[in-house]
Amino acid sequence: MCDACVMGVVSRRLGRRGVMAAVAAGVAAMGLSANPAGAQAVRSAPVTRVVDLTHTLHPAFPTFGGTPAIEIEKVLSFARDGYNINKLTYTEHVGTHFDAPIHFTAAGATVDALPVASLVCPLFVLDVTAKAAADPDYQATPEDLFALEASAGRLPAGACLALRSGWDAHVAGPMFRNAGAGGAMRFPGFRPDLVPLLLERGVAGVAVDTLSLDHGGSSTFAFHTGWLGAGRWGVECVAGLRDLPVSGATLVAGAPKIAGGTGGPGRVVALV
Amino acid sequence: MCDACVMGVVSRRLGRRGVMAAVAAGVAAMGLSANPAGAQAVRSAPVTRVVDLTHTLHPAFPTFGGTPAIEIEKVLSFARDGYNINKLTYTEHVGTHFDAPIHFTAAGATVDALPVASLVCPLFVLDVTAKAAADPDYQATPEDLFALEASAGRLPAGACLALRSGWDAHVAGPMFRNAGAGGAMRFPGFRPDLVPLLLERGVAGVAVDTLSLDHGGSSTFAFHTGWLGAGRWGVECVAGLRDLPVSGATLVAGAPKIAGGTGGPGRVVALV
Repeated sequence: MCDACVMGVVSRRLGRRGVMAAVAAGVAAMGLSANPAGAQAVRSAPVTRVVDLTHTLHPAFPTFGGTPAIEIEKVLSFARDGYNINKLTYTEHVGTHFDAPIHFTAAGATVDALPVASLVCPLFVLDVTAKAAADPDYQATPEDLFALEASAGRLPAGACLALRSGWDAHVAGPMFRNAGAGGAMRFPGFRPDLVPLLLERGVAGVAVDTLSLDHGGSSTFAFHTGWLGAGRWGVECVAGLRDLPVSGATLVAGAPKIAGGTGGPGRVVALV
Repeated sequence: MCDACVMGVVSRRLGRRGVMAAVAAGVAAMGLSANPAGAQAVRSAPVTRVVDLTHTLHPAFPTFGGTPAIEIEKVLSFARDGYNINKLTYTEHVGTHFDAPIHFTAAGATVDALPVASLVCPLFVLDVTAKAAADPDYQATPEDLFALEASAGRLPAGACLALRSGWDAHVAGPMFRNAGAGGAMRFPGFRPDLVPLLLERGVAGVAVDTLSLDHGGSSTFAFHTGWLGAGRWGVECVAGLRDLPVSGATLVAGAPKIAGGTGGPGRVVALV
């Protein structure tokens, strides 16, 4: 499928009323109507385990652009000043980090404006590890989603879909970016024609264990454009998906609450 | 009580065996033994509501030192570059932010080393709003803790104790720092002789709705020194405590996972 025509596909598949219904479901999913007392429980099952989905951010952590991830400068020291403090400098999209709608839109929601209720949600894990091991350009397909749903049930409004490609195993080496001589990267991602299906279901956010929601070889960022353009959020470079069930976990997506942010590193955990 | 002798008080009150027991309870509370399958549930009750305990961080957000909180520079723009990205620069202790043990110690745990299981914990809210409104130098006392425990039960190992002073209502104005002509600040905090009591209970972390765990007038930072010195964490400048029950909520303390960090801004939410 052509990468650059996602919103056209949305319109054709759903029609105008379908688009409006999807948007309405999305609004509900994004928690814009808050959590009124007596509403459906955010989680009913007991929590017995906390899984960290966050990599440690450090200067050599791999970045999309290949530049250092963060500058950490010690500015006060316990021995000299009585306490330790560092000064941090980074562009927002480093480490395990969020993409807010404004990242790929002219006027979408900034990261501080994401409704907090949309950040605590049912988490579904789409495992394409074997396919990605065989093909670093692998893009998760609608058929992969349907297979997940055949076993775990249809994704509910407000859910997060995480792509487990197994790529986080490469995070400490050059295979994570997997850049060729010309600089082009090769790693897995979401195929753009998943966007309308996820919107139909009212999914709130997506996560990937790679550097980008789109596969590394994408030149159009069509998944980003379609997904963030529809007002949804993403998380890139997550860890720990292998320690989660396919469904049943609750994501707590600790997006940074920084004014006007286009995303940025946060703490992402799952309650199992 | 003398501000500067907290660890002496710990030793006198508990004795050597008591200290060892408190440390052992603390180790368990910090999740150093993880969450083995079949262990006590992190939370048993259904979650029906998400409460954001995080202020939005922006350049004019009040800081302990009175300097701008963060520098936000737009470095890529959607119109010109195809996507929006900001560059951020800040010292770690701004906004709703964490204090890791290393903040006030020579070699304590850095923020990335806090066990993730210790960051998801039962939250107890100690309400001293009326006392703080009458006295901006108010320090929460052991008697305040005992009164809370008389109604809510003894704080369990691994809990977080949050001090609700009502000071977050002042966050947009000069009253939040409440600095006099000489620069000295006046706002509420924890009294240092709470440290040994919280260690006895195995409490994992504390939170305040002010700029410091210690009251604004402290010159010794004795609560910081005792609490962080015992390997525990704190969160400063939290919001939203008024929207929580005294007990029954679960804190998800999204500490930043940045290598060597002494703390820093994170996303803090409560599940009710």
